[in-house]
Amino acid sequence: MTEEFREVDLCVTAPRGFRAGAVACGIKSDAAIKDLAILASDVPCVAAGTFTTSRTPAAPVLLCREYLRSGKAQAVVVNSGNANCATGEQGLRNAYRMAELAAAHLGIPKELVLCSSTGIIGRQLPMEKIEQGIAAIELSSQSGNDFAEAILTTDTRPKRIALEFEIEGRTVRLGGATKGAGMIYPNMATMLCYLTTDVAVEQAWLQEELRAAVAESFNMISVDGDMSTNDTCLLFANGLAGNRPLNEAHPDAPRFREALRRVTTYLAREIARDGEGATKLMTVHVRGARDRTDAIKAARGITLSPLWQCALAGGDPNWGRIVAALGACGCTLDPNRFDIFIGPVQVVQQGGAASYDEAAARAVMAASEVTVTIDLHLGEAEATAWGCDLTHGYIDENTLYTR
Amino acid sequence: MTEEFREVDLCVTAPRGFRAGAVACGIKSDAAIKDLAILASDVPCVAAGTFTTSRTPAAPVLLCREYLRSGKAQAVVVNSGNANCATGEQGLRNAYRMAELAAAHLGIPKELVLCSSTGIIGRQLPMEKIEQGIAAIELSSQSGNDFAEAILTTDTRPKRIALEFEIEGRTVRLGGATKGAGMIYPNMATMLCYLTTDVAVEQAWLQEELRAAVAESFNMISVDGDMSTNDTCLLFANGLAGNRPLNEAHPDAPRFREALRRVTTYLAREIARDGEGATKLMTVHVRGARDRTDAIKAARGITLSPLWQCALAGGDPNWGRIVAALGACGCTLDPNRFDIFIGPVQVVQQGGAASYDEAAARAVMAASEVTVTIDLHLGEAEATAWGCDLTHGYIDENTLYTR
Repeated sequence: MTEEFREVDLCVTAPRGFRAGAVACGIKSDAAIKDLAILASDVPCVAAGTFTTSRTPAAPVLLCREYLRSGKAQAVVVNSGNANCATGEQGLRNAYRMAELAAAHLGIPKELVLCSSTGIIGRQLPMEKIEQGIAAIELSSQSGNDFAEAILTTDTRPKRIALEFEIEGRTVRLGGATKGAGMIYPNMATMLCYLTTDVAVEQAWLQEELRAAVAESFNMISVDGDMSTNDTCLLFANGLAGNRPLNEAHPDAPRFREALRRVTTYLAREIARDGEGATKLMTVHVRGARDRTDAIKAARGITLSPLWQCALAGGDPNWGRIVAALGACGCTLDPNRFDIFIGPVQVVQQGGAASYDEAAARAVMAASEVTVTIDLHLGEAEATAWGCDLTHGYIDENTLYTR
Repeated sequence: MTEEFREVDLCVTAPRGFRAGAVACGIKSDAAIKDLAILASDVPCVAAGTFTTSRTPAAPVLLCREYLRSGKAQAVVVNSGNANCATGEQGLRNAYRMAELAAAHLGIPKELVLCSSTGIIGRQLPMEKIEQGIAAIELSSQSGNDFAEAILTTDTRPKRIALEFEIEGRTVRLGGATKGAGMIYPNMATMLCYLTTDVAVEQAWLQEELRAAVAESFNMISVDGDMSTNDTCLLFANGLAGNRPLNEAHPDAPRFREALRRVTTYLAREIARDGEGATKLMTVHVRGARDRTDAIKAARGITLSPLWQCALAGGDPNWGRIVAALGACGCTLDPNRFDIFIGPVQVVQQGGAASYDEAAARAVMAASEVTVTIDLHLGEAEATAWGCDLTHGYIDENTLYTR
């Protein structure tokens, strides 16, 4: 099968039975920018979610965690421009109210409507605008891309994808839209991701697969190391494809897993690539680690180093910074054994300077995508993490604000 | 006693019996800048040290750890401009050779001479220049400040202090010199600190007190969260004050402890204030934590947040970033209970927006020193950490390099 996974348009409304809509309701200062959106299925879905581990989670995260205990959901309402975080009891009431308004608008039970917010922390939601906004939203199966735009804050572009593939010989789809990592005042942001599929899936297996996919994608990216209060990833499976519900034992389970990994990894990379001020996507691949935990520590450790992020911005193959970040990350290593490659150029051999062509290394560093490969030569485990460079743009977005 | 601790000049050569000297030997590209220095005592000292926890430690760190097992040392030789890290067996041989050359120059046993390096990672030391440099160093009891200058890399100014106080009625001194955190190519750097005293101290107690003082000072600062391969803090006590050696039971032990804390805290704050590109010193004080570990997590968590560092640079009292960093740091907290103050202005009350004067908060943020206070209202533990803002200057120092 040469095209086992085919890319199609409309992201979250690509799978059958999903509709979306978005409006500009005035939460953001620019009244022309869409800042409120609904994504809904025609029928109730099996749903799964993963959330920030912050101890100051935003109100919508608390709502999602509660409603998702049922394993079911049918819609989500999302606003950008206001995070509804550090807003206390009132904030929590507003989150439930927002979901309730969307449920009434859609004519479905309120317990089946989730909600998300993203934007500035510490301000109450403008509920009147949200109420009017929700009433004005018209849903359509063609509006997935509108939804993907309305959830953005400091992102420079939407991040969306949909794949078409076969389950039990039927053509099915899996779509996704996400917004990027980074927080900016007055449009403080966070990472949100919505995934939809018409495949029928058993809930427990769906939750397990989502958690595993997120661990290898969204949990392996960083822009600045700052963790958000609102991070949310939701997956809706409405079963309209009519297949026998997927679980571990289903022969097509691996194909669904592969589609999910492709979608989440694509969206995660797009977030890293569009980090605040970023000009380059960094991929760090660690192999030869003693175990998976060590591999993750090392891969993430390199993406998180501001000094290496700066070197990347400057196109400087200054591998001493990789060595320092590797030493600091806490992974098991033998200082006289590890190798480091920048692109195909081996810069470190057995822990010390390799003999390499400086010009070749600089040429690799000049590209818009740079891959660092580390071989620890201690075992078989590997991991991949993604990040971006650190530039004036990051500083500007986060110091220059509108009063 | 109104002046229990009096500040005096000459830092590391302020205590009796310590001498220092420095030369420019050509390790740094600018041949006029001093880059090699020796600090020595006239007699063998009881010595203690703390080091980086990096798993890729520089060669001099390995030497110090080995020689310090004896608990004795008499001198240290330090070069800036080259870190002697990721240099393998040759690097280790060079570190031992460097100490040996200094020992021969001083006419003392080689096992009593420690060494440190700071600068670029991955290049072998220019041993010929170092050999000639060591031979040219003339030591004097007036050269403490020269020593403090020769150990610098990207620091904009020396960091040094000496205090005079009484032990058993005798006038004694404790001095220190340090260089700052931050790594820059081609003058990649690290944190180094040298402390000297003429007080007689038992070695085990000295090591314990140094570890405790470092934990509350150098281990509570951050510039960019990057940990170095060369971090070293050495304390030499030559006993020339002639007192009965201090230990926990000595009645003047608290006074020595207080002097040591004052010196290490002062030097640590100076490092944070002079972080690469920094324009502001940030102090974060956490109180009301359940335990000390939580207090440290929270205080360090705030200083490590690039988003809050950017807000500080912009003078923006954007406390949502403090809330986000607090939620992410892993400390135990009640999201509806914590208070946050920026200077004296309470911006968060019980986890949500307090009613405060925006102009007053902006005025506090405009100063060159900003203190954030967090009360978790969960217990009695507290901690203080120091950091700095994140500016274009940091990016420039770490992307714009000399080829």
